[in-house]
Amino acid sequence: MSENISVIQSIELKLHESLALTDSKFAPPTLVQALHHAIFPGGARIRPQLCLAVAAACGNDDPALSLAAAAAIELLHCASLVHDDLPCFDDAATRRGQPSVHAAYGERLAVLSGDALIVLAFEVIARAGNRSPLRLAPLITTVATSVGSPNGIAAGQAWECENKVSLSRYQKTKTGALFEAATAAGAQAAGSDAETWRPLGEWLGEAYQVADDIRDVMADQSMTGKPAGQDIAHDRPNSTKELGVIGAIQHFDQLVMKAIKSIPSCKGEKLLRSLVAKEAARLIPDDWFLEEQRPIHSQYIAS
Amino acid sequence: MSENISVIQSIELKLHESLALTDSKFAPPTLVQALHHAIFPGGARIRPQLCLAVAAACGNDDPALSLAAAAAIELLHCASLVHDDLPCFDDAATRRGQPSVHAAYGERLAVLSGDALIVLAFEVIARAGNRSPLRLAPLITTVATSVGSPNGIAAGQAWECENKVSLSRYQKTKTGALFEAATAAGAQAAGSDAETWRPLGEWLGEAYQVADDIRDVMADQSMTGKPAGQDIAHDRPNSTKELGVIGAIQHFDQLVMKAIKSIPSCKGEKLLRSLVAKEAARLIPDDWFLEEQRPIHSQYIAS
Repeated sequence: MSENISVIQSIELKLHESLALTDSKFAPPTLVQALHHAIFPGGARIRPQLCLAVAAACGNDDPALSLAAAAAIELLHCASLVHDDLPCFDDAATRRGQPSVHAAYGERLAVLSGDALIVLAFEVIARAGNRSPLRLAPLITTVATSVGSPNGIAAGQAWECENKVSLSRYQKTKTGALFEAATAAGAQAAGSDAETWRPLGEWLGEAYQVADDIRDVMADQSMTGKPAGQDIAHDRPNSTKELGVIGAIQHFDQLVMKAIKSIPSCKGEKLLRSLVAKEAARLIPDDWFLEEQRPIHSQYIAS
Repeated sequence: MSENISVIQSIELKLHESLALTDSKFAPPTLVQALHHAIFPGGARIRPQLCLAVAAACGNDDPALSLAAAAAIELLHCASLVHDDLPCFDDAATRRGQPSVHAAYGERLAVLSGDALIVLAFEVIARAGNRSPLRLAPLITTVATSVGSPNGIAAGQAWECENKVSLSRYQKTKTGALFEAATAAGAQAAGSDAETWRPLGEWLGEAYQVADDIRDVMADQSMTGKPAGQDIAHDRPNSTKELGVIGAIQHFDQLVMKAIKSIPSCKGEKLLRSLVAKEAARLIPDDWFLEEQRPIHSQYIAS
């Protein structure tokens, strides 16, 4: 547990250090404030934690690089939230229990904050490339792929503008891709093979998306920090429509099981299992459903 | 001359090749169209030409890397135009004589196209890093710095949201930074020192900004492909307000002279001089002013 606290602390520290790169006596002060607002206080920082957990499982022989990759992934996640909250998309007034960036600083600074965070993510990785320069190209390619087009967040969000959408393609790109990048980049930053670790990110990303759908239907704003019922309000795909809420929670449990089972045999195996199980419990608290509604739930909480 | 045509052709080809990375049978088709619309047909492609001219002057021993850097810089330039044209900024209906991206594809796809182009720029550089992996970190840092905060385009555009703005800081970040990156990255892609080449980009960027101010006041839409009088309409700084139009053209000529004089002695010197002089004539056609209004103009057109 103390190990995990220090992981989270090191992520927060690295995010502060990264944001400091955007500031100077020459920086436009309101942009700097908006950038901080976009990153702090954070959410669960699950993607960077996942990235670092995989790096640790792979030996983590270049901790500066894996930490940079983890921070970059969180910066990109936050950038996507800032742009997703814009009036032309979700028009969300709140995020993580505080005003969204555009609500607090206006639309122009929200667009620019997102842009600056995307740029910063790549700068942060590049600046950490001294010790293992040969890892930079594959690492940056992995991260870029997960946020661009056709396989990343930008493409995922763009599916919201199409008339015909495949639900699984939409979820894979909008949510799954960055989870997959978190595990792949964690491995690559430690000089390991990305492919072994992609399934973990993939299953978790899918589980996360289903959890998000369930939370959108069940939770109120005081629990999630963002307005509920957004998918219905914006006529977006939501897996509870297809499976029902009980079907969706059982699907979620199956995905979490698949994620846990995909973890390759390695020294960080136990820590990773417990991270996944803890994250599942954070996403869908145990008391939201009866145990008999979740027949395989007890199998993974023991992890 | 034929050499320059082939440079421009290779830039166009590389831009097409780069955009192909964003497309697949899984890509959201309208985003792919919007991305093409943002890049083609292009403007003068002056930044990538400058990048390649400097790389050539430095020996250009890794042509794939310098071409990737040049394309990345153009992608970032186009991304900034797409976001700059958004309703919350300039609300420009046209760009390069055709509808702006948001006018053609809507605001959401304009935001996402800009995002995807920023991501693509870094992916394109990373994918060209195989042969000279040690050059990747400094190259990406140079490019990122020129489009982020505090010294790049995002910061430059964010100055439009501040009450107190230094005109020179605004121009340096919004326009100058990417010119400086074009020369610095050209040098770095060829394994040379960036610092020697920064002044050329800096002077040219400043000249370009002054030319843009003059064009905004003097040219009509049929000449520039974008609406005139935007600076006055949006109450943005414009150097003709400060210096008058004649003062501004003389300032422009001085900056072009400084740019030409900053070119270090090297084998590509002559080509670079002629590129700068040609670009100056493209920006401000000779017949816009009388020769006696431009006392130092004849000095550099002979370059």
